[in-house]
Amino acid sequence: MSMTWCRFEAAGKTAYGIVEGETVVPVQGSPFGDYEKSAERLALSAVKLLVPVVPNTFFCAGLNYAQHVTEVAHKVGLPPSLPTRAEVGYRANNALIAHGENIVKPADATELFQYEGELVAVFGKKARHVTPEQALDCVLGWTIGNDVSERSWQKSDRTFFRSKNSDTFKPMGPWFVTGLDYRQMRTIIRLNGRQVDSFETAKMIFNPETFISETSRYCTISPGDVMWFGTEGVQENMKPGDVVEIEITGIGVLRNQVVAEA
Amino acid sequence: MSMTWCRFEAAGKTAYGIVEGETVVPVQGSPFGDYEKSAERLALSAVKLLVPVVPNTFFCAGLNYAQHVTEVAHKVGLPPSLPTRAEVGYRANNALIAHGENIVKPADATELFQYEGELVAVFGKKARHVTPEQALDCVLGWTIGNDVSERSWQKSDRTFFRSKNSDTFKPMGPWFVTGLDYRQMRTIIRLNGRQVDSFETAKMIFNPETFISETSRYCTISPGDVMWFGTEGVQENMKPGDVVEIEITGIGVLRNQVVAEA
Repeated sequence: MSMTWCRFEAAGKTAYGIVEGETVVPVQGSPFGDYEKSAERLALSAVKLLVPVVPNTFFCAGLNYAQHVTEVAHKVGLPPSLPTRAEVGYRANNALIAHGENIVKPADATELFQYEGELVAVFGKKARHVTPEQALDCVLGWTIGNDVSERSWQKSDRTFFRSKNSDTFKPMGPWFVTGLDYRQMRTIIRLNGRQVDSFETAKMIFNPETFISETSRYCTISPGDVMWFGTEGVQENMKPGDVVEIEITGIGVLRNQVVAEA
Repeated sequence: MSMTWCRFEAAGKTAYGIVEGETVVPVQGSPFGDYEKSAERLALSAVKLLVPVVPNTFFCAGLNYAQHVTEVAHKVGLPPSLPTRAEVGYRANNALIAHGENIVKPADATELFQYEGELVAVFGKKARHVTPEQALDCVLGWTIGNDVSERSWQKSDRTFFRSKNSDTFKPMGPWFVTGLDYRQMRTIIRLNGRQVDSFETAKMIFNPETFISETSRYCTISPGDVMWFGTEGVQENMKPGDVVEIEITGIGVLRNQVVAEA
């Protein structure tokens, strides 16, 4: 059975809710523990969606699709090097924004300001020393991430602090969905309504099972943590006014507009 | 005025407390908002100290003392390269442990398993676009971190996921102290009681004011976030059974024992 979990704000209060068609059923508690449905029904259009979960640890697989690795290497002027092991990286919570919120392009960012459409696992169980066969049991659901990147900083900087972790650079949502098979998904990216990429979500260099298992050899993955799985393809630049949509079939559409820093 | 804030567990409950001599005064609330002292007094020796704060974003300046940069480069077989800008990095919450908890050396770690004694800022106010002159106003207090590192993985891996973020690799504590001047501090590192390093905490390549200001140009630093500021010197290896102590004058001593993974 599939359930769609959101986190939302309405009438000044924040809660988790279950999306049913065009309505949201608020719950007491959370999808990561006990919860109880309320009798209330809110119109989905009347609530403000929030980032569906604020992770304790924000895992992110940086390079996980072959064509993307080759193209990014080319763009930053380095020889392409396909990863030989599933080594996870990190992103920072300060950068998270929800579906519908604005991606703010920093005043000093160059035109090499790009989206990356990614599948995201939301964990529901603790994972430590899990095998690839056990890994998906720890995933409660799936959501969508946009790993916004400033390529000139990605090339010039020693760390990803501003190229990938500036405020608003990590849209995630609109919600997460349980009971899905990621092997059946397609990722479709649209810029101002025009399709700029479409790929089989599962055609990764290392699949989620491998990433989760390898990470869990050393690190505890906790309920509420997320892991992003990289993007495919060649990205175009985004400029203020642009609207970027990441659709993953079965999950939904993550939509954000780009604005210039004031 | 200086205050010493801890987070602790006693009788199955977790709370913030104020350390006064050998006692802890539990508070309702937190040092990051409103709080009220309780009438209770607990013996410091009778409570279990926890990580003093679990950050939303865990900032860490990797290379910030000249001698350390040169020595680590030498150890990992790369030419030394002093950073020319204050570019912050990240660590992962899964790796945090408290004062007194065990550092677990993974079964497949090599002998190049090392401590790094670091000054840590605990933020009390939101910082965004702050100048170096404003930066320290956002720091509520200071604590101590041990940036445990497996150097062979630091060299071989594409990311720091296991070299620096394996479970238990980030001891932090024992508490944080307000009202201190980091320019007056000395960092002293002891392995099994023997002093292995001692340096002026403030002799950084980029000082905390610079790191906070530079980071805040792009990223919001929130109350409860932490920023680690790197270590100086040449590290020795730690092996199971060893006890490592990081002392920073005015703050206290962070002590952890190394054990082998079962």
